[in-house]
Amino acid sequence: MARKKGLAMARKKLRVIPLGGLGEIGKNMMLLEYGDSIIAVDAGLMFPEEEMLGIDLVIPDLSYVLDGRRNLRAIFLTHGHEDHIGALPYILHQVNVPVYCTRLTAGLVEVRLKEAKLLKQSDIRVVKPGDRIQEGPFQVEPFSVAHSVPDSTGLAIHTPVGLVIHTGDFKLDHTPVMAQSTDLRRLAQHGHEGVLLLLADSTYAEIPGYTPSEQVVGEALHSIMSTSPGRVIVTTFASLIARVQQVIDAADDTGRRVFVTGRSMQDNVQMATQLGYLNVPKGMMVAVRELDQIPHDRLAIITTGSQGEPTSALTRIANQEHPHVTIVPGDTVVLSASAVPGNESLVYRTVDNLFRLGARVLYNRIANVHVRGHAAQEELKIVHSLVRPRYFVPIHGEYRHMALHADLARSLGMPDEHIFVLTDGDVLELDEQGAHVSGRVHADYVYVDGLGVGDIDHLVLRDRRHLATDGMVVIILAIEKQTGRLVGLPEVVSRGFVDIEESEELLQRTRQKVVSALEGADHIVEWGVVNTKVKDAIAQFLYQETHRRPMVLPVSVEV
Amino acid sequence: MARKKGLAMARKKLRVIPLGGLGEIGKNMMLLEYGDSIIAVDAGLMFPEEEMLGIDLVIPDLSYVLDGRRNLRAIFLTHGHEDHIGALPYILHQVNVPVYCTRLTAGLVEVRLKEAKLLKQSDIRVVKPGDRIQEGPFQVEPFSVAHSVPDSTGLAIHTPVGLVIHTGDFKLDHTPVMAQSTDLRRLAQHGHEGVLLLLADSTYAEIPGYTPSEQVVGEALHSIMSTSPGRVIVTTFASLIARVQQVIDAADDTGRRVFVTGRSMQDNVQMATQLGYLNVPKGMMVAVRELDQIPHDRLAIITTGSQGEPTSALTRIANQEHPHVTIVPGDTVVLSASAVPGNESLVYRTVDNLFRLGARVLYNRIANVHVRGHAAQEELKIVHSLVRPRYFVPIHGEYRHMALHADLARSLGMPDEHIFVLTDGDVLELDEQGAHVSGRVHADYVYVDGLGVGDIDHLVLRDRRHLATDGMVVIILAIEKQTGRLVGLPEVVSRGFVDIEESEELLQRTRQKVVSALEGADHIVEWGVVNTKVKDAIAQFLYQETHRRPMVLPVSVEV
Repeated sequence: MARKKGLAMARKKLRVIPLGGLGEIGKNMMLLEYGDSIIAVDAGLMFPEEEMLGIDLVIPDLSYVLDGRRNLRAIFLTHGHEDHIGALPYILHQVNVPVYCTRLTAGLVEVRLKEAKLLKQSDIRVVKPGDRIQEGPFQVEPFSVAHSVPDSTGLAIHTPVGLVIHTGDFKLDHTPVMAQSTDLRRLAQHGHEGVLLLLADSTYAEIPGYTPSEQVVGEALHSIMSTSPGRVIVTTFASLIARVQQVIDAADDTGRRVFVTGRSMQDNVQMATQLGYLNVPKGMMVAVRELDQIPHDRLAIITTGSQGEPTSALTRIANQEHPHVTIVPGDTVVLSASAVPGNESLVYRTVDNLFRLGARVLYNRIANVHVRGHAAQEELKIVHSLVRPRYFVPIHGEYRHMALHADLARSLGMPDEHIFVLTDGDVLELDEQGAHVSGRVHADYVYVDGLGVGDIDHLVLRDRRHLATDGMVVIILAIEKQTGRLVGLPEVVSRGFVDIEESEELLQRTRQKVVSALEGADHIVEWGVVNTKVKDAIAQFLYQETHRRPMVLPVSVEV
Repeated sequence: MARKKGLAMARKKLRVIPLGGLGEIGKNMMLLEYGDSIIAVDAGLMFPEEEMLGIDLVIPDLSYVLDGRRNLRAIFLTHGHEDHIGALPYILHQVNVPVYCTRLTAGLVEVRLKEAKLLKQSDIRVVKPGDRIQEGPFQVEPFSVAHSVPDSTGLAIHTPVGLVIHTGDFKLDHTPVMAQSTDLRRLAQHGHEGVLLLLADSTYAEIPGYTPSEQVVGEALHSIMSTSPGRVIVTTFASLIARVQQVIDAADDTGRRVFVTGRSMQDNVQMATQLGYLNVPKGMMVAVRELDQIPHDRLAIITTGSQGEPTSALTRIANQEHPHVTIVPGDTVVLSASAVPGNESLVYRTVDNLFRLGARVLYNRIANVHVRGHAAQEELKIVHSLVRPRYFVPIHGEYRHMALHADLARSLGMPDEHIFVLTDGDVLELDEQGAHVSGRVHADYVYVDGLGVGDIDHLVLRDRRHLATDGMVVIILAIEKQTGRLVGLPEVVSRGFVDIEESEELLQRTRQKVVSALEGADHIVEWGVVNTKVKDAIAQFLYQETHRRPMVLPVSVEV
């Protein structure tokens, strides 16, 4: 009996499965499975890559979790950024499980769930660092970390086979803005008691040294506000509550009042003020109706649009389309954010437009107006040294970041076979005896486009790319019902290919080409054959003529 | 008589007109016009921006030059990079004028003209720093500058109203690789004699301090080659001849031989060796048939692909598709180049793939393996101080770079009204009395797509963007010739919209919607009206159903 139980125990292993991420492994969701119980860490969305044409968002693929044989017990959120919470509305819509997170994270989640009309039925449970939450075989204890949004946490997850430390997104900031630093003492205690597995943020693993403290930005903002002759307009991420506090503090110190523009910024400022995360002196905030009466050197503006988003407040300001703010010489615009990869050209277009209007524009390349929220190499080394895990999985980063984080772990003396650089969907199985990658689960991306979730697949995207590159040519064939013969000349319509009026002659020759492609076939029985014949002949003809490859789409109408 | 002549003289002004650039003003071509004579500085191509879907290249708009009333006398090339010479085949095809350039630039140009079968009829004239070339009212004297390709020059252009200094692309490198530094002494002499107008490179105007010397890279390459256990594979721009020399030198010093892969790299290495710009020790180069016999720690490979171009040699290596080079652990790959804006994701995909194959990858963020070829702020200040021009036009850079370069000039004491931040097509008129922007000329972009030059316009690109975002729905209506009535149900075909097999039901409802949109109209006379009716009804219906906006394209067939 004891032996049988021993065997059954031996078969039970902890399974660690990263999901989501568009290259950033385990960024958006990480599954921990033991027996038939699963908990998920984070439920984030990804912004589509360039070639995912027309896609609004990408969310993790939950098919493994939802196949009915497993039991997702809860979702634990490390912090309130979109790439860690943004998929919640889609996920809770499919599976309504408890969501554990800290207070500000809950505030940010609730704004989103309210929009999705899911707030009432959702089960959001506010926790704080040091709490212990039991869900099935897992006992989870959040610990405080410094990151660019307050109330960020890592998770210490006690499992039947040992302790797992998940850092979340973090850096070490010894002089943080809102008195929240990474709890190195608690990490050291865990390390002392023994850690089976460390999952640690790799986003900045390629950067030597330390990430500067948020304090650097506070000083820069203070100096800009005290020396600028006109308004100071600061843009940042709406979730960067600590940065908003810094702007308010700098404005307060330099005799400026603050106007907030952009819906998500207004929502978050209101929520964070209500929850007590923002300290706003009385009479500081400016209402729209007061705006015209305030001298420019007494005003600071906080706005959305740090990523050059086309409908954001800052982009409207740059395009002279904002209802309340028109740039005049003397204005200073501060981009207190870095461009998310892929957004660079939008951001720089906004910067250029602001310069054209006569504003002075300060951004990261020319002023210390932003620091990032991730640990650089020396900070990572400190965490590794305190935690001293048996096994290590680098997470949160592109493959190169994880490979470099693995190098860093090796340089600290960790044996190569204890380090696992995973890919989304890989299953790492581990227990007290050992660890190995045992297989893969289904881990595609799920595309969100308009109202559709998951109805766009690779074929549709391939077609969009084809259409985007060389446009399309539709060929309409009228086929006589009785004889199966082509009636008259086919119609040819094109879009995105060449300017039709310019190329009338080319289109006429295309029509003739269709006819000659079908010559000999005086009885068109097989539409499939005709279709292929016309498609091939016209694609080849147009390539010869133009060196372009439009999508050729023959359509027949029986008459 | 004297007075009349004086008047006629007064009417003649120098006109300076930047063309081309995709935001980078005057980057690709700069016109200088006096009387009816024009000379052009550079004839470069631009790589398309993200939203120019399917476009291969963009070239400057020559319609102003070619309108028959003006006389383009010659083109002067500052150096051999694509963005300064790449449009020559298209331009010489339209107007065959003499092209002046230094020897290596001529070599790079000739490779391109040979491909375009234009070499024989072209008139390429090799010049060297200090030569004086008279073309109409202009006397042009090239002077040596340091940049990332040898034989780079700036131009001192004597005009009837004064001296114009055009820096080309440059930096100050006091320890250059190929003994070519910026000729500060000649600049100082010009400054002493009096300079009317300075046109200076702004690419790096946002960077404080100095751009490091090329020597830094040489040292890094040397250290990498001496410590790497396996092959060292270096990728860089094919035109970066000085960098290729550094790789050869480092290989020579560390007992490695060199294999070159990638067509443009092979072409340029051969050409530069023949012209004496590359110093290749005997027995250094490895032929394909020898490749297998050389121990990995005795081999360096120089390859194209620094921008992640899909068909380049490095990308093939990263995708395990290269015929001769397969990555094995122990290989080191060095990206000795920075990603051109817009190419970042392609470059990083290649890096990630190389890491996946087990290579060590060194790139600019983690090692000193590249320096750029443009002057930073302190270098710009030196040039301004030596040249002391009356007027200043920042060139070569996005608008923000020029605005910052203008700030820099102001900080050196130049009056605001002597600084002109231009936009492509702006006409700056100047003489001894003054300078002002007098108007604009036609300065569109000319798109090259396949064989077509200039046949793609904004409408085609707008259609491509529309198709790319939400795909298309084609609706085929069979209209009875005699009655003008719709026959049967319309055919509906979609691509890039939703997965058709998944949405059969939606397409059926779409067909019904077409019928009901046309109800009442029992005699369809006006195709325009029907077209609009169907288009609007279906676009609205599909938006309601899916929140997507595919291109709706009704087509009628008379039966």
